[in-house]
Amino acid sequence: MKQITRAISGSVTAPKGFRAAGVFCDIKRVGTGKGSNKGQKRDLALIVSDTEAAVAGMFTTNQVCAAPVKVSLPRSRKARARAVVVNSGNANACTGERGLADARTMCDVTAGHLGIEGEEVLVCSTGRIGIPLPMDRVRQGIAAAHGLLSGAPESATHAAEAIMTSDTRPKEMAVEFELGGRTVRIGGIAKGAGMIEPGMSPTGKRPASLPLHATMLGFLTTDVDIRPAVLKAALQESVAGSFNRITVDGDMSTNDSVIALANGQAGNPRIDSLTSTAGRKFLAALNQVTLGLALMMVRDGEGVSRVVKIVVAGAKSIADADAAARAVGNSQLVKTSWCGGDPNWGRIMDALGYSPARIVEENVDIAYVLPGSRKRLAAVKRGRPTRTPLEALGRIAKAPEFELHIHLHLGTAAAFLYASDLTEAYVDFNKGE
Amino acid sequence: MKQITRAISGSVTAPKGFRAAGVFCDIKRVGTGKGSNKGQKRDLALIVSDTEAAVAGMFTTNQVCAAPVKVSLPRSRKARARAVVVNSGNANACTGERGLADARTMCDVTAGHLGIEGEEVLVCSTGRIGIPLPMDRVRQGIAAAHGLLSGAPESATHAAEAIMTSDTRPKEMAVEFELGGRTVRIGGIAKGAGMIEPGMSPTGKRPASLPLHATMLGFLTTDVDIRPAVLKAALQESVAGSFNRITVDGDMSTNDSVIALANGQAGNPRIDSLTSTAGRKFLAALNQVTLGLALMMVRDGEGVSRVVKIVVAGAKSIADADAAARAVGNSQLVKTSWCGGDPNWGRIMDALGYSPARIVEENVDIAYVLPGSRKRLAAVKRGRPTRTPLEALGRIAKAPEFELHIHLHLGTAAAFLYASDLTEAYVDFNKGE
Repeated sequence: MKQITRAISGSVTAPKGFRAAGVFCDIKRVGTGKGSNKGQKRDLALIVSDTEAAVAGMFTTNQVCAAPVKVSLPRSRKARARAVVVNSGNANACTGERGLADARTMCDVTAGHLGIEGEEVLVCSTGRIGIPLPMDRVRQGIAAAHGLLSGAPESATHAAEAIMTSDTRPKEMAVEFELGGRTVRIGGIAKGAGMIEPGMSPTGKRPASLPLHATMLGFLTTDVDIRPAVLKAALQESVAGSFNRITVDGDMSTNDSVIALANGQAGNPRIDSLTSTAGRKFLAALNQVTLGLALMMVRDGEGVSRVVKIVVAGAKSIADADAAARAVGNSQLVKTSWCGGDPNWGRIMDALGYSPARIVEENVDIAYVLPGSRKRLAAVKRGRPTRTPLEALGRIAKAPEFELHIHLHLGTAAAFLYASDLTEAYVDFNKGE
Repeated sequence: MKQITRAISGSVTAPKGFRAAGVFCDIKRVGTGKGSNKGQKRDLALIVSDTEAAVAGMFTTNQVCAAPVKVSLPRSRKARARAVVVNSGNANACTGERGLADARTMCDVTAGHLGIEGEEVLVCSTGRIGIPLPMDRVRQGIAAAHGLLSGAPESATHAAEAIMTSDTRPKEMAVEFELGGRTVRIGGIAKGAGMIEPGMSPTGKRPASLPLHATMLGFLTTDVDIRPAVLKAALQESVAGSFNRITVDGDMSTNDSVIALANGQAGNPRIDSLTSTAGRKFLAALNQVTLGLALMMVRDGEGVSRVVKIVVAGAKSIADADAAARAVGNSQLVKTSWCGGDPNWGRIMDALGYSPARIVEENVDIAYVLPGSRKRLAAVKRGRPTRTPLEALGRIAKAPEFELHIHLHLGTAAAFLYASDLTEAYVDFNKGE
C-alpha cells in the first residue's frame, strides 16, 4: 500500500482546516532547580480544527491514570470534537479532585477563546507526577497560543516542540493520498522518550488477551471525511500496530494518549466502513504515520544507542507471540547486551523461557537480520547454537538497527516489537540528583 | 524464633558428616579472551555427606532449563542422596543431548570416586549458555576435588568460591540450635549476582498463582534427622520466603537450583512433621540461613549500590501483593531513581498502576522507612502526596538500604521483595565487548 501515499512536509497543519500553536508559559517554573525549563522550551500546545471533526482516542491502561486521561477519555468516545490542549512539564497525575478540575478548566479556557463548548476540547499532559498545575501560567499560555494559532508548518513544529519532555527532537510527519478524486492528508506529531511501553485502549481498560504495558502523546489530524465510529476503529487498529508495539524501558505511563481528529474538509466520499476499499486505503495511510512516529520515539528514546525489531513467529497465539517479544525486548540483560553490540543469544533463550508464552526449547530458532541488506544469519536452530561464528553475528548486532527473527515452531501466530537497548546514558539520565 | 539459633562460623561443612572441596580446573579456558578465568578462580565444587542424606531441591521454572536441572530435578524428588557436584564458567544450557550426557557423566564420575551410585549425586552448573562442557577438564577437576574433600571450614569456603561467577565475594552462613537435647547445625553457600529473579519450584513447573521470575545456586547441609518429605516441604517454604523473594535484574535464569541434604548425624528425634514444635524450630532456623544467603546475593548483585525491601500490604490476594512488589522492584525507572537516591514516588505509583495487581489510585499509601531507626515517612496517603518534604524522603532514599511500605487498602494479603537499584555499573558489566 506504500505506493498509494506520498510523504509531504509538515504535520498536524498539513491537512486542510487545522491550525496549531506552541508557546512557552513556564509550567515547570524556570530557575527552580534541576527540573526547571531552563532553555525556555515551549510547553503548551493547541491543535484546532476550524470545523467540527470526528474524534477518536486511545489511552493508557495504567490503573493509575492522570486527570487529563480521565477527562479526555469520555470525550473521545463521543462523535465529534474541535480541539486539543496539551502541556508538558507537569503530568497532572496523582493530583486528585483539584487535578480533575484543572484539566477541565484547561478545556474550558481553550473553548472560551475559540467560542466553542468545553466538551468539544480534549486535554493531555506529560511531565512530573504529583504536582498541581500552575493554572495562572496555563491560562496565560492558552491565551498566548490562541493568539498564535495558524496553519503554517512552523506552527505545527512549535506544537511538536511544546509537547516534548526528554525528547531531543520534535517528531512530525505527514502523508497525502488520493481518495475518490480528492487529495486526503494525514498529519501527526508525537512525543516520548522514557516511561515508554504504551498499552493503550479506547476504553482505558486492559484487553484480557494482551499483556500490555510510555509517557507518549500522539496527535493525528486528517481532512478525510469519515464516520466517527470508523475513525475510532481505524485508530484502535493503527495504534495496536505502532505505538503499542514499542518499548524503551517497559514502564507504561499514567498519561499515554493518542488523539485523532478528522474534519472531512478533503471532500472525499465519506468512509463508512474500515473494510471498504477507501477504508483500507485510509488505514494503510494512517498506519504509515503512526508507525513512522512510533519509530521516531524509540530511536529518540532516553540514552538509546540501538533499536532492535523483534519478530516472533510460530507462536501458539498472538498473546504468546506478544508476550515472547516483550520478554525479550524488556529483559535488562538482553537490552544491555544490545548496548554492547553483543549477539548474546543465550540471554534471548533465557528470556523466552521465562516469558508467559509457551516455549519448547528444542523448537526455537533465532536469527539476526540486517534490514538494509536482508542479510540473515541463524544463531540458534531448534534450540541449539548454529556454526555461525559469533563474529559474524556480532557484525549485525553492532549495526545501529537490526532485526531478531524468532520462530517458536508451535503454531502460526506472530507479533513484532521495536525495542531499544539499555545504556549507561539511560541510567545517568533517570537516576535524578 | 531468632533467639533459638546461634550463628556459627563455617558453612556447608559445619554440620556433622559433611565434607567439601573447591578446585580450579579451567572450565572457562584461561587466556581465551574476555570470558576467560584469568584469576584462576576455583570453578568446580563437591559437597558430600559421609552417610545417606534426605534430599530436597528447588529448581528454575524457566521453560528453557539447563541439562543439570533436568538431571537433578528427578533425583531431588527421591528420598535420599549423597553428594552434589557443581561447576561455574559454563551453564551447560542449550546443549542438547550432549549436555544431558555430560551432566550425567559429572554425577557418574563423582560417584565413581566416592564408591556410590551415580543416581545418588546431583549436579548444578552456572555460566555461559550454549557451549559444551570441556569434559576432560571437568573429570580432572572432580578427581582433584575428591582428593581434597575435607570437613574443614576452608574447604567449604573453597566450594563457595568455586560456584561464584560475577559474585565479588563468597556467600557462606551457618547456624546451630538445640533439638531434643542435641545440637543441630545448618550450613549453606550460595552464588548469584546477575540474571537474578529466581522463581523456583520443586517440580520445575510454575505455580499458576504466582508470577515468577537468576542464575542463583544454593546448597544447604544439615545434620538434622528429618523425614525426606518434611525436608522437601521445609525447603519449598523456606525458598518461597527467601531466594524467590529477591530481584536484581528481573531475569530468571535457566539454571537456578537450591539443594538441601540432611544426614541425621545430629541424632535428634526424627522430625516427622513441619507443624510439630521441632519441625517449626527447624524451619525457623532454615529460614535464617536461606534469607541470610538471599540477602548476601542482592547486596552483591551486579553493580548494585542500594538494596530496597518492598513490603506490599492490603492487597486483594497474595498473588496481587507479589505482582505489585515485583512491578515496583523490576521497573527500570524506579530502579534508576534508587541509584540516584531519588525518592521518586511518582514512578512507584506508575509501576503499581501497570502491574497486573488490582490497584485503586485513591487507596494507595507509600512510606519510606529507615530500617535501623524505624524512622517512617509517609510520601503518599490515599493516592495523594503528603506534605513530607522531598528532602526528608531523600535522606531515607539515600541510605544504602531502606524499606518501601506500600499499602493498597483493598484486602489483607501481603508480600515482600528485596530489590536492587539499576546502575551504570550494571550496564557496563553486562554490555559485553
